[in-house]
Formats: sequence, structure tokens, C-alpha cells
Amino acid sequence: MHTHEMISTHPAVGGALDPALVELIEDLFDCVQACTTCADACLAEDDVGALRECIRICLDCADVCTGMGRIVSRRVSFDAPGLKPLLETCAEICHACAVECDRHAAHHVHCRVSAEVCRRCEQACGTAAGALTAAVL
Amino acid sequence: MHTHEMISTHPAVGGALDPALVELIEDLFDCVQACTTCADACLAEDDVGALRECIRICLDCADVCTGMGRIVSRRVSFDAPGLKPLLETCAEICHACAVECDRHAAHHVHCRVSAEVCRRCEQACGTAAGALTAAVL
Amino acid sequence: MHTHEMISTHPAVGGALDPALVELIEDLFDCVQACTTCADACLAEDDVGALRECIRICLDCADVCTGMGRIVSRRVSFDAPGLKPLLETCAEICHACAVECDRHAAHHVHCRVSAEVCRRCEQACGTAAGALTAAVL
Amino acid sequence: MHTHEMISTHPAVGGALDPALVELIEDLFDCVQACTTCADACLAEDDVGALRECIRICLDCADVCTGMGRIVSRRVSFDAPGLKPLLETCAEICHACAVECDRHAAHHVHCRVSAEVCRRCEQACGTAAGALTAAVL
Repeated sequence: MHTHEMISTHPAVGGALDPALVELIEDLFDCVQACTTCADACLAEDDVGALRECIRICLDCADVCTGMGRIVSRRVSFDAPGLKPLLETCAEICHACAVECDRHAAHHVHCRVSAEVCRRCEQACGTAAGALTAAVL
Repeated sequence: MHTHEMISTHPAVGGALDPALVELIEDLFDCVQACTTCADACLAEDDVGALRECIRICLDCADVCTGMGRIVSRRVSFDAPGLKPLLETCAEICHACAVECDRHAAHHVHCRVSAEVCRRCEQACGTAAGALTAAVL
Repeated sequence: MHTHEMISTHPAVGGALDPALVELIEDLFDCVQACTTCADACLAEDDVGALRECIRICLDCADVCTGMGRIVSRRVSFDAPGLKPLLETCAEICHACAVECDRHAAHHVHCRVSAEVCRRCEQACGTAAGALTAAVL
Repeated sequence: MHTHEMISTHPAVGGALDPALVELIEDLFDCVQACTTCADACLAEDDVGALRECIRICLDCADVCTGMGRIVSRRVSFDAPGLKPLLETCAEICHACAVECDRHAAHHVHCRVSAEVCRRCEQACGTAAGALTAAVL
């Protein structure tokens, strides 16, 4: 992805670009991709009846991360007002999706990989939200 | 991104995974990211009044590529029915966005990078749509 | 929805607002809603195994109509360049989704309603695309 | 919109359908529509330079409500786990968008209407989140 080149040439980016912002954006789109494919892969499995909740939460997580990836792509730093609750909520849905995917990880590799991607995105959102708390103090 | 790991573990992927499919998906999400940031960066420029059309088409392109990236993430090969017109239309909007961004490339680096990402996505969509034609013959 | 109030107060709307544009936008968001619920309702049915293709195409249709609804919300008339191929492609996916939903309409009311909403959206897109052809001649 | 027909025929809807759920879904898509048009209308205004923040937050609000509208379209009641923080966050962004749009309401009718739609959506999200608290006690 060209995220670093795009954000670093935004006119509002004063001084050094926070690499964690670039990482967060890329983790979010990775999560959209992984959850979308995991939902479709679950749907194609023989035991689709046991994967209903996994499909539903993957679709939810993809929808939240789609919006979040676009919103953070309109930021040049983490200290934007209103970003903290969005990041915390996004971390929550990524966590819930990872937990559900992990339940099926032993049987379906796509669920295992999707859980990993969700956890990575959860951590990136959580770290970003935490940095925001620190910045306010 | 974990696109290759996700698609290659989908139960419907028979035999070898087409690397062009993985490349296409990643180009699409790259284009969502680049166009979203370019629109916001244009909005922050002093000459925003001259960048209205660039902002609008970047938002359009981001919306089309968001849908397309999700749709192709639900495919394991290019020979899915109905994919060809979607890919051709996506290539068209990416082309139009690249042309508009290029008009501002000399003054704004984000427009130059965004144009590059759009052209790459246009080519990936066009190649995929072309492969579909060949597959039907 | 407040679509008419929103579009009619856009500074670029010269003279009378085309009511078909307002109707199209509302049909598109109705289609996003119906297809999203239909996919989830199919997923909850006992015969989910027979509804896989219906779920997949409902998700595709919702993704295309989400983008299209947003794009047309950035227009004040149909004669915008580049709109015609987008509308034609959207009509195609709505048609394909309606055909698939209709296959299950006898057993599931949500599939019957979703098919109706898709056909209405298909017609709105087709009429709009046709108006564009006429405008060019 | 056909929201009531769609949700009421979902196999998981036990007994009476909560009309507030249908209302919430329709308010969310109305908000996507209004904020998307308001951003474009602001972009077309002569004083676009003074409307940058309004455009940005309208795009953010449209992205959050797009995801939220799709997520709630996959629910048949408010007591779904994980819904409360999403609704609260959505209410926050709708509130922030309404406040910003209101700042320009005297000069631009689209900002006034958009603010009204945002506030209505904020209230629908807040009422839904409040109902969730009550349900837990």
C-alpha cells in the first residue's frame, strides 16, 4: 500500500509523520479484507450451520473497519477530536470477532488467519486510543 | 496484507490460486486508501477551489473500489459470473480519477501518487476483465 | 428520507430538481437495506446450505448499491459524466440478485420482498442510464 | 423503504418486532444520504474554504452510519451483544456532525437540514443504546 506516501504529502502533516498512524490504516484495510473473505469461506464450508455467528460478526467487523479505515485516512495525526471513542469501539468489535474466529481455528485455517488479523487490528486501535488518552493528560 | 493466506484457505479454491486475484484485491484497497487521503489533502490545500472536481471523483473512486475490493474478496477465481462488467466499470472510474489527479500532479504530490495508484488499479481491473473474456471463448 | 430537501438545496441544482434522481437515491438505499437483511435472514434459515448463492449475491448487491447510493447523492442531475456505466452495472447486479432471490421466494418471504426491492432498483438505474443515452444524442 | 417487511420476515424475529429498530435503521440510511449530499453541496459553495471541517465530519458521519445501518440491518432486536458501544459511538459522531452543520445553518439550507437529520439519528442511536442498558439491569 502507498499509505505512507499519501499521508506524508498531506498539507496538514506538520513535521514527522507518526508511523503508527500508517500502520493502523493498513491494519484496518487488512482486517476488512480478511473478515470479508473469512465470512465467504465459512459460508462455503460443509459445517456452515455451525459458523453462522462467525459469518455475522465477520461482516460486522468488516463494516466497522471499512468506515474506520476511511476515517483514519482523513487524519494526519492521532490527536484529532472524536477519534478516541471510534478507535475504542473498533478495537472492541475486532476483539469479539477474533474470539469467535478462534473458536473455529482448529478446523478452518481461514478462521485462524482472520483471528490473527483481527487481533493485530485490535491492538493497533487500542494503542492509538491509548496514545490519545496520554496526549490529553 | 494477508490476502494470499485468506483466499488460499477458502474451501472453494481448487488447485493453484491465481496470484493476479490477490494482487487485484490489494490494489483495490490501496486505491480506496489513496483516494480517500487525496480527497482530504485536496480539501486542506490553499487552492481547494480549483480541486473540487478532484475531491469529488476521488470520493467516487473510493466508493466504487470499496465495494469492488469486498466483492472480489468473496471470489476465489476470476471466472465468477457477473464479475466482468463490475471490473470494467471499476477500471473506468479509476481511469477517470487518474486523469483528474494527474492534472494537479505538478502542484500536489498527493495527487501524483494517487494518480499512480489509480492507474495501477485500473490496469489490474482491466487485466482481470480481459482474462474473463478469454475464459469464455 | 430527506433526499429531496438535501438535493434541492445543493448550490449546483439549476432550476427544477429531477424527481427521478431523488427516487433513484432512495431506491438504492432501500436495496442496501433489503439485501443486507435478506443475507442475514437466509443465514438464519434451516436450509442455509441451499441459500449460499443467495447470501453471496445479496452481499455483493448491497456493496454495489452502497457505493452507488453515495455517488448519486453527490449529483444534482443525471447528465454527469461517467454515471452511465456505473448505473448500467448497478442495474445488472440488481437484476442478478432479484433472479436469485426469486428462486427462494416461495419458501422465504424475505427473499420475495428483497427480489421486489432489487427489481425496483434495477428499473430506477436502467431508466436513469437510458435518460443519459437520450441526453447525449 | 421496506425495512419493516424485511426485518419482520427474518426467521429469528420472535413475536412482535420493535418499531424503534425499524426507525433506527431508516434514520441511519437517511443520515448517510444527508451527510453525503451536504459534503458535496458544501464543496460546491463559494465559501468552501470555511466549510472544510463541515465536509470532513460529514464524510466521517456518512462512513460510520453506513456501517451502522448495515450492522443493525443484521439484527432483529436491540439486545444483541456488542451493539451498545457501537450505538453510543454512532450517536457521538452524529452529535458532532450536527453541531458543525448547525454552525453554517444560517447560510446554507443543506447544512440546516443535514443537522436535523443528524440529530434525529443521534436520538435514535441514543434511545436504542439506553434501551440496551435497561435490558441488562
